[in-house]
Amino acid sequence: MILDLINTREFQRLRRIRQLGTASSTFHGAEHSRFTHSVGVYEITRQICDLFQRNYPTKTPQDGLWDDHERLVALCAALLHDIGHGPYSHTFEHIFHTDHEKLTVTILTSPETEVNQVLKRVSADFPAKVASVIQKSYPDPQVVQMISSQIDADRMDYLLRDSYYTGTNYGTFDLERILRVMRPYHNGITFHISGMHAVEDYIVSRFQMYQQVYFHPVSRSMEVILSHLLKRAKYLFEHKDLEAIGNPSLLLPFFKKDFSIDDYLKLDDGVLNTYFIQWCTSPDHILSDLAKRFLNRKPLKSVRFSSKTAFLLPELSKLVSEAGYNAEYYTATNDSYDLPYDTYVPGSTKKADQIELMQDDGSLVELSAVSSLVSAITGKFSGDERFFFPKEMLSSSEDPEVFTPIYQAFQHYLKNRWVIIPKNADK
Amino acid sequence: MILDLINTREFQRLRRIRQLGTASSTFHGAEHSRFTHSVGVYEITRQICDLFQRNYPTKTPQDGLWDDHERLVALCAALLHDIGHGPYSHTFEHIFHTDHEKLTVTILTSPETEVNQVLKRVSADFPAKVASVIQKSYPDPQVVQMISSQIDADRMDYLLRDSYYTGTNYGTFDLERILRVMRPYHNGITFHISGMHAVEDYIVSRFQMYQQVYFHPVSRSMEVILSHLLKRAKYLFEHKDLEAIGNPSLLLPFFKKDFSIDDYLKLDDGVLNTYFIQWCTSPDHILSDLAKRFLNRKPLKSVRFSSKTAFLLPELSKLVSEAGYNAEYYTATNDSYDLPYDTYVPGSTKKADQIELMQDDGSLVELSAVSSLVSAITGKFSGDERFFFPKEMLSSSEDPEVFTPIYQAFQHYLKNRWVIIPKNADK
Amino acid sequence: MILDLINTREFQRLRRIRQLGTASSTFHGAEHSRFTHSVGVYEITRQICDLFQRNYPTKTPQDGLWDDHERLVALCAALLHDIGHGPYSHTFEHIFHTDHEKLTVTILTSPETEVNQVLKRVSADFPAKVASVIQKSYPDPQVVQMISSQIDADRMDYLLRDSYYTGTNYGTFDLERILRVMRPYHNGITFHISGMHAVEDYIVSRFQMYQQVYFHPVSRSMEVILSHLLKRAKYLFEHKDLEAIGNPSLLLPFFKKDFSIDDYLKLDDGVLNTYFIQWCTSPDHILSDLAKRFLNRKPLKSVRFSSKTAFLLPELSKLVSEAGYNAEYYTATNDSYDLPYDTYVPGSTKKADQIELMQDDGSLVELSAVSSLVSAITGKFSGDERFFFPKEMLSSSEDPEVFTPIYQAFQHYLKNRWVIIPKNADK
Amino acid sequence: MILDLINTREFQRLRRIRQLGTASSTFHGAEHSRFTHSVGVYEITRQICDLFQRNYPTKTPQDGLWDDHERLVALCAALLHDIGHGPYSHTFEHIFHTDHEKLTVTILTSPETEVNQVLKRVSADFPAKVASVIQKSYPDPQVVQMISSQIDADRMDYLLRDSYYTGTNYGTFDLERILRVMRPYHNGITFHISGMHAVEDYIVSRFQMYQQVYFHPVSRSMEVILSHLLKRAKYLFEHKDLEAIGNPSLLLPFFKKDFSIDDYLKLDDGVLNTYFIQWCTSPDHILSDLAKRFLNRKPLKSVRFSSKTAFLLPELSKLVSEAGYNAEYYTATNDSYDLPYDTYVPGSTKKADQIELMQDDGSLVELSAVSSLVSAITGKFSGDERFFFPKEMLSSSEDPEVFTPIYQAFQHYLKNRWVIIPKNADK
Repeated sequence: MILDLINTREFQRLRRIRQLGTASSTFHGAEHSRFTHSVGVYEITRQICDLFQRNYPTKTPQDGLWDDHERLVALCAALLHDIGHGPYSHTFEHIFHTDHEKLTVTILTSPETEVNQVLKRVSADFPAKVASVIQKSYPDPQVVQMISSQIDADRMDYLLRDSYYTGTNYGTFDLERILRVMRPYHNGITFHISGMHAVEDYIVSRFQMYQQVYFHPVSRSMEVILSHLLKRAKYLFEHKDLEAIGNPSLLLPFFKKDFSIDDYLKLDDGVLNTYFIQWCTSPDHILSDLAKRFLNRKPLKSVRFSSKTAFLLPELSKLVSEAGYNAEYYTATNDSYDLPYDTYVPGSTKKADQIELMQDDGSLVELSAVSSLVSAITGKFSGDERFFFPKEMLSSSEDPEVFTPIYQAFQHYLKNRWVIIPKNADK
Repeated sequence: MILDLINTREFQRLRRIRQLGTASSTFHGAEHSRFTHSVGVYEITRQICDLFQRNYPTKTPQDGLWDDHERLVALCAALLHDIGHGPYSHTFEHIFHTDHEKLTVTILTSPETEVNQVLKRVSADFPAKVASVIQKSYPDPQVVQMISSQIDADRMDYLLRDSYYTGTNYGTFDLERILRVMRPYHNGITFHISGMHAVEDYIVSRFQMYQQVYFHPVSRSMEVILSHLLKRAKYLFEHKDLEAIGNPSLLLPFFKKDFSIDDYLKLDDGVLNTYFIQWCTSPDHILSDLAKRFLNRKPLKSVRFSSKTAFLLPELSKLVSEAGYNAEYYTATNDSYDLPYDTYVPGSTKKADQIELMQDDGSLVELSAVSSLVSAITGKFSGDERFFFPKEMLSSSEDPEVFTPIYQAFQHYLKNRWVIIPKNADK
Repeated sequence: MILDLINTREFQRLRRIRQLGTASSTFHGAEHSRFTHSVGVYEITRQICDLFQRNYPTKTPQDGLWDDHERLVALCAALLHDIGHGPYSHTFEHIFHTDHEKLTVTILTSPETEVNQVLKRVSADFPAKVASVIQKSYPDPQVVQMISSQIDADRMDYLLRDSYYTGTNYGTFDLERILRVMRPYHNGITFHISGMHAVEDYIVSRFQMYQQVYFHPVSRSMEVILSHLLKRAKYLFEHKDLEAIGNPSLLLPFFKKDFSIDDYLKLDDGVLNTYFIQWCTSPDHILSDLAKRFLNRKPLKSVRFSSKTAFLLPELSKLVSEAGYNAEYYTATNDSYDLPYDTYVPGSTKKADQIELMQDDGSLVELSAVSSLVSAITGKFSGDERFFFPKEMLSSSEDPEVFTPIYQAFQHYLKNRWVIIPKNADK
Repeated sequence: MILDLINTREFQRLRRIRQLGTASSTFHGAEHSRFTHSVGVYEITRQICDLFQRNYPTKTPQDGLWDDHERLVALCAALLHDIGHGPYSHTFEHIFHTDHEKLTVTILTSPETEVNQVLKRVSADFPAKVASVIQKSYPDPQVVQMISSQIDADRMDYLLRDSYYTGTNYGTFDLERILRVMRPYHNGITFHISGMHAVEDYIVSRFQMYQQVYFHPVSRSMEVILSHLLKRAKYLFEHKDLEAIGNPSLLLPFFKKDFSIDDYLKLDDGVLNTYFIQWCTSPDHILSDLAKRFLNRKPLKSVRFSSKTAFLLPELSKLVSEAGYNAEYYTATNDSYDLPYDTYVPGSTKKADQIELMQDDGSLVELSAVSSLVSAITGKFSGDERFFFPKEMLSSSEDPEVFTPIYQAFQHYLKNRWVIIPKNADK
């Protein structure tokens, strides 16, 4: 059954969608796909089920132990949790207002998909059950928390996998040990306190991966370019400049805001890139320039700013405009909080957002109450707000070129990769 | 300079071409690109140059030691040795008669490429020098052998990298130790005999990677499908069935056998896959079926045959036809020798095809003369000839279906994954 | 020269002294010696010197760059920094009032050692120079900080090595990257800010190794036993009970407080263990029991206590006495602060105790000022004070045995591995 | 129960006996003990039992599947298979005519050991059953082959462990995959053919570890010294030169050829080394010199010889004598065949000496019949016969020293690390 799901058209499509989107432009090597991640999440979930069934099988209803009848729904949800993702997911969603979670549910429950055909072989309501696990509305909290909680199969796989493929040394933790101390209880999944250090190490690894990989300024800069490129194409379509955008047939339904699930399933990274390649020769200069910057990896530069220097950004954008760049497409501000972010926050009111350890006498204690390390880093992450602009603004040409004074004025506001208030403020 | 080469349009394009083509359908994870491999070859070459310069710098002309003036040409050749590769390289070449080695030379020496612009900054003849290293006609054998010989930076990188990304345990060897015992001499590069075991281990690893990864039957089967898919599209184009192939604009120059270097540089895996996605809905059944089999990973099955059973293949093909499959597109025979293959063969007459070790007294000895392990495996590889056919031929339906007798007749010729001569030969 | 130093009797002796003492009783696998660590520190130092010489060679006196004439003294100090360590170093020192740092200096500078013979071949004052590096009084701060500072070759080697041999996943960090961003300056060694995350990761790894390996309660418990065993033997010697201690000839000079450097160099782990084996059959019951507990790994148990429960420890000791154990030898309190401890403390007044990063414009910034992670964990470690006692006190025998009430009274004070104030305090 | 066995005095003693004896003098790092290996063999056996019980539980008697009642005897045998090993096992046995296999049986079955006490808790005949597994006389071939066969838990653990601790890259193979294809059958244990490459890789790794680690000339040279040192001590004891050997009380029973199991259990590496330290100051020059060479790692040198040059060895020994060395103690010949050796030999008549793979249809095929790699290396190992002599014989002093002509005559017979027949044979 799992093999049949893997062999569906919808799942095989994940081979053509990179897990980390633009991050491979920073960490070459990180070219792995959502396919390989999804199989990994399945495998970790299978191991958890095996361990639960061996060590904590339910004996009486409501005893808080593991009911192995839940195995199949857990495994299917694990395998299919990302089935609704499309190419460059977050950016694409932002521009075209798609929603990968809703699309996941649609793919699972729509009779026209192969995935739905396979799932229905179990029972008519099985597709909806699998979908409800992914939507966190499934009644068994153990199954839900396996797939989505602070320490779930999804996160454990992507942290280890992304660490492996990016080649960083961060992000590794002792998966085997964490699995060994996991145990089911009434409200979901907990960890025996003897494994506290392994859990602690996982939290630190996650913290480091976010700061050092997922929020890397160059990847974010490539995302800015991608976003502006798609925005420009959409603008041109809406202004009927069809010559400029050519005939991106597989994208048209999305420009027209009228797409079927089948249209969505035809998209992948390669399809988008193919249109970008065609746009490189577009008569619209902004479209062709952004397409080239994206394909040939010419990131925007960025500097950090704070609430105290944010007031200078309009001035910086103005200088970018004066230097000949449309500021709408060649500047951006964003901070890490725009991105999917999840440093562990203890004391959250939502159950799944707590990590609880089981003590010798069976009582539970929240992780940060016993781990000085987790307690220390909790809530300590300071934002990483950045202003993006074309690299050319940093030119240091001594030639009496027309733009040189603009570049110099721009650089006056920067120091050590931060926006600063120049000393001679009336400049 | 190296950074400028990496930032060219032609080199960035390698990010969109997978190193192992169809092998990622067998070893998911092996989704790395030619970009990351090329950077790796550069890095190993840089380390060799550093070690040579530190330990064996030339003092007098013709002393057989390392002349660091050769560094730049070596590094550029290392980085750019694969710049002429296109998507699904071997298969594409086979159908469209392109030649990645010639294309590499063109990309290096043609004034319209960015790579050529950067190389020319060194000197007018520098692009041609780099090209000659890749063509093995450069006069300094040390530089040539760094990039292409039995133990070169290219092979060392791809064996280790492919092993890492496929997740196999084969293919690893002690790179650091091999580099440490490498040394230049008049006729190229040799290895001190104290590192014999590391060199031996490299040869064994190479042997294992070929047998277990590069020749994997499923990857070869996917290559058969790809090859037949492109052949069908070409056939339809040549028979003017333009409705069937749609408008694969970036491929048309290749159908027309009239393409520019710029046309070639627009191709990548994603572009081909985009047309395959479109072909899934082609009115030509063979084209659409092969496109779906390729994209959704439905490999042909295969069995091994020997010279004694080869005579049965026409009969098997005939049965495949009878079952409703066009045998030209749904069967194939190939053996591993069709594929790029390079088990170490000692005693070759070509200099670069020998591995020689330097003894304490400075004399050289060929590897297999001192290594019982290499001597043992040399020339021992037996071919792996296979016949490919649709999986459906293995159906075991008990239903009184029209094709069932054909399937049974077909299966009569197979046992334990080999073609056999059935006992009742007059059947 | 380095090979000659390695081949001295004094250095070879380090093969017979385990790096982690009693820790191998907790982390079996951690059986590596001070020899292998010392060679590792040498190797890292060599790499630093190579990188400094390649990238930052001095050009004019006092330019703050690397003077490669310092290489030899740095390498020798790296190799020999632990030459004065004896078996179970910290415990032995505690009982016999030896001092491994002073002994290191003596071994380097005393004409009777082979090490001294080799060093003197450089110059008459070379042994003293090497010694002064280890004593941190050598004038060149770069050399001193290579060997001892917050990120030195010594710590980097032992963290990675101990992590490897204990088999924990903690303690790993990106050595190669740290070395790449290291650079010399006037006051010692700094790190380019682009490597901040690697440095940060090193600090976190160090923190984790201390909490999870070096302070492990079982290892500390074995150290308590060892300490009490040696204390008992010394007591018996001082009370002339020679029958009880037999004839531990190689230890006698230490009992007599009159030992030569040659006496010291005859000791190793095996020598001490040999006497422990003999003491297993001593007529003194405490000596023989402690020897057996040490050799056969019967650790004391321990519970944590706080300043609020410390007042109960005499009562607990009293109960141990009542159960038949001499509390002087069978109980102990210690906290991690007794052990060599070095969480990074920013803002220290001593230069070597700061980690400073070099920014783009050449200015320095202290690590915790830019790393939210290091800032968070700094000074957050809470002590781990423990009370040790015989495992037998936790017996739960239901038999109406004579000691059962004592055990029960004892256990009344313990909960979840902590000392507690029992509810019924007048019990 | 397993924990209780680990906590016995006899098992804890294995912590003080290095797994690889003198090999740590070549591969520093390889300082791991028989304790850690024994625990590893237990762990692999446990995994095999788990997999067998999950996938191949017996249903009817004699169905050739796994009977989990055998688990305990298998686990105990795995854990205890090396319990009879003493310090520097092979050399010690050679000199003192002990036999670690017989001693293992004695330790298991003798009522005075703690191990026997624990085993007897299962049943009176359980110790003998465990012993019979180790002696290969136990009736269930599956249990026997888990512990000793061509691919057993013992070998798989030591190859991986020794590879890890020596830091070589050889010796690794895919343990997890091998375990996954293992399956029980009537005559023992077989492997599904789909895992052939993993099995093949194991055989190659084993071949490489023997050639590159276990037979390393320097380790063998240190073994020669150790052997001669013990031989000399025995000689002195037998000739009543008690002053020369001091009072090695724990060794005396072995000199006297009258030792109890308790005497044997008091020995470990440290005890022997302690006597060697004392012998360094012995008035017998041969004893003290060999002790120093052993402790301070001054290996003999060695050269290879063949059947054609063996006739020259008496002449070489004579020259060593003339240079002042007692040839009995300062020369030796040995070849790798003297050492425990086990390259896989297919076609052996003994069942356990075959590796058989199970094909799709359930039939078995011997490994080398299907693996060209194993077939190639089988029986290809050529011996490595060596002549050992003092390093001083290679001196190249130009001084008109008395021994110089002898050294020159000696060196006349050597070239490129081989014994040769000098050209001027009448010299």
